[in-house]
Amino acid sequence: MTKAGILGGGQLGRMLLQAAANYPVETFVMENDENCPAAHLCHHFTKGDITNYDDVYNFGKELDALTIEIEAVNVEALEKLESEGVSIYPKPAALKIIKNKILQKQFYKDNEIPTSEFVITQNKSDLNNQLNFLPAAHKVGLGGYDGRGVEIMKTKDDMKKGFDEPAVLEKLVTIKKEIAIIVAVSNNGDNALYPSVDMVFDNRLNLLDYQISPADLPEKVLWKVEAISLKVVKDLQSPGIFAVELFVDIDDNVFVNETAPRVHNSGHHTIEANYSSQFDMLWRVILHYPLGSTEHILPAAIVNLLGEEGQKGEAVYEGMKEILQIENVFVHIYGKKETRPGRKMGHITILSKEKQELIHQANRIKQTVKVLAKNN
Amino acid sequence: MTKAGILGGGQLGRMLLQAAANYPVETFVMENDENCPAAHLCHHFTKGDITNYDDVYNFGKELDALTIEIEAVNVEALEKLESEGVSIYPKPAALKIIKNKILQKQFYKDNEIPTSEFVITQNKSDLNNQLNFLPAAHKVGLGGYDGRGVEIMKTKDDMKKGFDEPAVLEKLVTIKKEIAIIVAVSNNGDNALYPSVDMVFDNRLNLLDYQISPADLPEKVLWKVEAISLKVVKDLQSPGIFAVELFVDIDDNVFVNETAPRVHNSGHHTIEANYSSQFDMLWRVILHYPLGSTEHILPAAIVNLLGEEGQKGEAVYEGMKEILQIENVFVHIYGKKETRPGRKMGHITILSKEKQELIHQANRIKQTVKVLAKNN
Repeated sequence: MTKAGILGGGQLGRMLLQAAANYPVETFVMENDENCPAAHLCHHFTKGDITNYDDVYNFGKELDALTIEIEAVNVEALEKLESEGVSIYPKPAALKIIKNKILQKQFYKDNEIPTSEFVITQNKSDLNNQLNFLPAAHKVGLGGYDGRGVEIMKTKDDMKKGFDEPAVLEKLVTIKKEIAIIVAVSNNGDNALYPSVDMVFDNRLNLLDYQISPADLPEKVLWKVEAISLKVVKDLQSPGIFAVELFVDIDDNVFVNETAPRVHNSGHHTIEANYSSQFDMLWRVILHYPLGSTEHILPAAIVNLLGEEGQKGEAVYEGMKEILQIENVFVHIYGKKETRPGRKMGHITILSKEKQELIHQANRIKQTVKVLAKNN
Repeated sequence: MTKAGILGGGQLGRMLLQAAANYPVETFVMENDENCPAAHLCHHFTKGDITNYDDVYNFGKELDALTIEIEAVNVEALEKLESEGVSIYPKPAALKIIKNKILQKQFYKDNEIPTSEFVITQNKSDLNNQLNFLPAAHKVGLGGYDGRGVEIMKTKDDMKKGFDEPAVLEKLVTIKKEIAIIVAVSNNGDNALYPSVDMVFDNRLNLLDYQISPADLPEKVLWKVEAISLKVVKDLQSPGIFAVELFVDIDDNVFVNETAPRVHNSGHHTIEANYSSQFDMLWRVILHYPLGSTEHILPAAIVNLLGEEGQKGEAVYEGMKEILQIENVFVHIYGKKETRPGRKMGHITILSKEKQELIHQANRIKQTVKVLAKNN
């Protein structure tokens, strides 16, 4: 039986393990919190630091395969493990590029993948020379995640929030749409694209507000999105699951924003909305099985369930009965003990043939379901 | 968070726990084997004997809810737990009827639910008086499971195989079809029927050979099947998931064969083929959520994966790559360490619009996938 490990034990690990139980695979998870969402669903849990060389190396050295649920892992240990024969998804070489937002931008440029203009800044004084480059987004090279490590700069005053460390300043594109697309790549190079996803963001927290799949795009734009996404994963030269996030501007130009070399929030609807989910698909890749079908069953919307403002403590979920009365609404509660303002506590998927119905129900769900603290 | 326990840790528990991870529920499993299929997927595993009063009582007394994956559990402990406020799915009163094949038959008769004629035999000498009742099936009252405790009797000679304990002798019906139907019943009495299933049996092991859903039945017969199944669950007066197995004879009469008061092999296809699976549905019942949609996504077939004849030892799975190349084929390996001839090791689901394609692929899969012992 294949021994497969996951670095990180959050909701992505949790959903991976739900899918793993269909296959002949022995599962291992490492995370520094033994009450994390994935801890109880694996065969073997190891408490450890996924950014520490020794922890990652010791965790991985007896495994056949290893994957990640977050980019912030020790890549050097993964390189060592790969050299000793452990299969890593994604390959450490690809992860290294993506993990560092500077290298990632440079990779797009080197491979002639359309992406917004950028300059690299080593420190604040570099940044301060770029006033003419605004409006732009300043992103730290290493360590950004879920809205941390990104600052939008429109005026000179905004530059005070900039990072005094290696970072990339990306020119803001006049965005008509943000699109994500999940791509699966097998060990022998076969690939499969899921239908594209329209992402609607909450600007305040930079967390996804809701998403709809398939995206509403003219065919010509969809082709660009798919062709560019395929080029990204081909140039990364690694098997695995990839989420390519793209901007479509007002002239229907398509730019790659970022790529995640792993299962991703923008693919959560695939659990119910597609025949083979992104989680199922990653196991097919890891176990050297043929790729599954990415065809959609029905159009889908997803609403993220975030910890309510001002609420911190043991999580309780309000409005569940009401929204589960709606046809083809599915909840995914991540099992995090504690809620905090803006923390990702779960997501809710809606299936419907009618796009207007998806938007209507997404809004209704957003207004109805609340994650509160028990004795707040 | 609701604390919910499962008595039994086999594949049904495993699939229940895969579905549980979507909900705010803390899961507990009791089974006498800590390497059982469900052990690693729950929050808390207890090694214990599900037929023992103290083990079941002590396991259940701190829980909010308790369900079963097999009828052979200690019902007296469940009655005690129920009296102390633990919600039991199914109710012990319903389980008591179903668990004993004599009481179950009597229940159908008392409630005017069509079922084949029967006589109760307390011992072998009772049985030997019933030569004129043949052909018939002799079933032990308590303890039968998966083909054990059932003998088909056509001649006087066959009666030697009869049971010298309380049993029921059921007249054989000239069967045109065997049908199963999964019914969900919520705490407030709402119910939902899944599409009916055609079951095709292997007479040698009395294990399911393959099943197809929806069953190919004239509308008039389907109505009978549904009406009778609903009457069965209403008369049992218990929330939960029920699998009603029925015979259709050559004159299109419908008879109830047996009922299982739990998630069931005949509903495994609902994971991929229906919007809300039988496992998802049981959690909705236990957590007092509204019932999900039983509508089918696509017609489905299931093939059980049984341990190959002559093979005993650590299980290996042959032919997986080949069959996973077929569109919309999904494997469920139960994670049992050891294979034995005829042991249920997994199942494979096929989705297709075309019934002929389902049958074709089911046969192809049966010929391709083998569960062998590693160094046999």
